[in-house]
Amino acid sequence: MERDVALKLVKVQLTEHRYQHTLGVMETAITLAKLYGVDELKAETAAIFHDYAKFRPKDEMKEIITAQGFPGDLLSFNSELWHAPVGAYLVEKEAGITNQEVLDAIRYHTSGRIGMTLLEKIIYLADYIEPGRHFPGVDEVRMLAKENLDQALIKAVQNTILFLMKKNQTVYPDTFYMYNDLIKKLEA
Amino acid sequence: MERDVALKLVKVQLTEHRYQHTLGVMETAITLAKLYGVDELKAETAAIFHDYAKFRPKDEMKEIITAQGFPGDLLSFNSELWHAPVGAYLVEKEAGITNQEVLDAIRYHTSGRIGMTLLEKIIYLADYIEPGRHFPGVDEVRMLAKENLDQALIKAVQNTILFLMKKNQTVYPDTFYMYNDLIKKLEA
Repeated sequence: MERDVALKLVKVQLTEHRYQHTLGVMETAITLAKLYGVDELKAETAAIFHDYAKFRPKDEMKEIITAQGFPGDLLSFNSELWHAPVGAYLVEKEAGITNQEVLDAIRYHTSGRIGMTLLEKIIYLADYIEPGRHFPGVDEVRMLAKENLDQALIKAVQNTILFLMKKNQTVYPDTFYMYNDLIKKLEA
Repeated sequence: MERDVALKLVKVQLTEHRYQHTLGVMETAITLAKLYGVDELKAETAAIFHDYAKFRPKDEMKEIITAQGFPGDLLSFNSELWHAPVGAYLVEKEAGITNQEVLDAIRYHTSGRIGMTLLEKIIYLADYIEPGRHFPGVDEVRMLAKENLDQALIKAVQNTILFLMKKNQTVYPDTFYMYNDLIKKLEA
């Protein structure tokens, strides 16, 4: 899909702030895709659509998760996780994106998972470090991202787990699996 | 089993330092058992035997884990975890302890797990806060343990996950299942 067409489809789904974030994720994802030899168009498309479902009503997201047989435990974890798998579903249904790698990069951009593809890693990381992000530790991850994708991801997911624990919030199992998976690959 | 008999059986398995730690865990476990209405004798026995297998050779522990059909993923995680399930097995086989609650408190004293019993929580926590323990955050957990067992456990397991992440080490799944389980109960 042409970039301007994709951006138009997404813009109406988002607030202006979230649209600016999406543009940042797009630029960052393309940069990372070039750096790590990933298809730039797939990275661009996944980045543009990653937050497509962000502002859907919770009830609609719940219905889709149940009706589509997405992991049922999602509903007992933070609703911030829901827009990612719901987004993958809606982007296929409403925007006609059918590439499974792109859809999976949208599906796992918040939780992560075991065995992430390069494209999934790039979208996860671009979402974390795009220029509009400002929080403790983000600069360290930005620097790591230029040198070692997995080490940048480890730091990002560690920060995320730490952030959730500080707020006494649950951590979705896929996020821990992602962490362990990356550590085991680092050790190997 | 009489306390002095149990202590004699354990003393020969441990270094002097680890035996002193065991005495600390025993005293702390009994205090917590009184406070939270748990059978004191079970707490005493589980505490005395919790580190029974701590100094067994790794090869022996591996063999037992495999032969007894303990979770196979244990072997791909930190070997510090192994002495707990192996201990539960050896304590039954060599010391004749047959009470399943006591054996489970030994089995899960390092990893934790989802749905921990009060006895399991007390042994996990006593191991963490006994008077011989000195590390950042332990005093906060000691204070919490007097007021709210689950909140003390949450802080202890958060500290443990943080400690492992700082060293870029994996976190055994049961440990974060324990964390999520306690947080969900806190929210409920």
